[in-house]
Amino acid sequence: MSSHRLEIRVKPRPGLLNPEGKAIHHALAALGWAAVHDVRVGKVIYVDMDADTPDAALVEAEAMCRKILANPVTEDFEISLVPAEGGVPS
Amino acid sequence: MSSHRLEIRVKPRPGLLNPEGKAIHHALAALGWAAVHDVRVGKVIYVDMDADTPDAALVEAEAMCRKILANPVTEDFEISLVPAEGGVPS
Repeated sequence: MSSHRLEIRVKPRPGLLNPEGKAIHHALAALGWAAVHDVRVGKVIYVDMDADTPDAALVEAEAMCRKILANPVTEDFEISLVPAEGGVPS
Repeated sequence: MSSHRLEIRVKPRPGLLNPEGKAIHHALAALGWAAVHDVRVGKVIYVDMDADTPDAALVEAEAMCRKILANPVTEDFEISLVPAEGGVPS
């Protein structure tokens, strides 16, 4: 049993409006970033958990996404294992 | 000039309280995920932009983070180039 850090990216499905992304897009344009043509915003969730293997942690994370972390109607998700940062979790 | 998609992960600095992460942690525990020992939530921002090279896009994205996407007091950021999803940006 060892500790694993999962990075879960929950993002709006293509085609759905994303008002927060639109607001950022406008702000970037106002600051002169004319080369930007789309911005979309989602959530990134870092889960530190104990599991026997990295694969077991990934399986658990997928179950979490399906159960509560992502809205299956409006969001997609991607999961990666990432190295835990040094230091004590807060 | 070609189009690049940047994935920018903006996350709360270690040591800062993260109430949204705490709420998710409690919800996971209530659902039986006792092996989870920390959850932290940040934002993921997908920026589609034109730039001469991938490196030029990365440099622009870092400038955007320093200017408006991340709060330097409370947040860290990481930037990756990712493949654009098929289909028309919405």
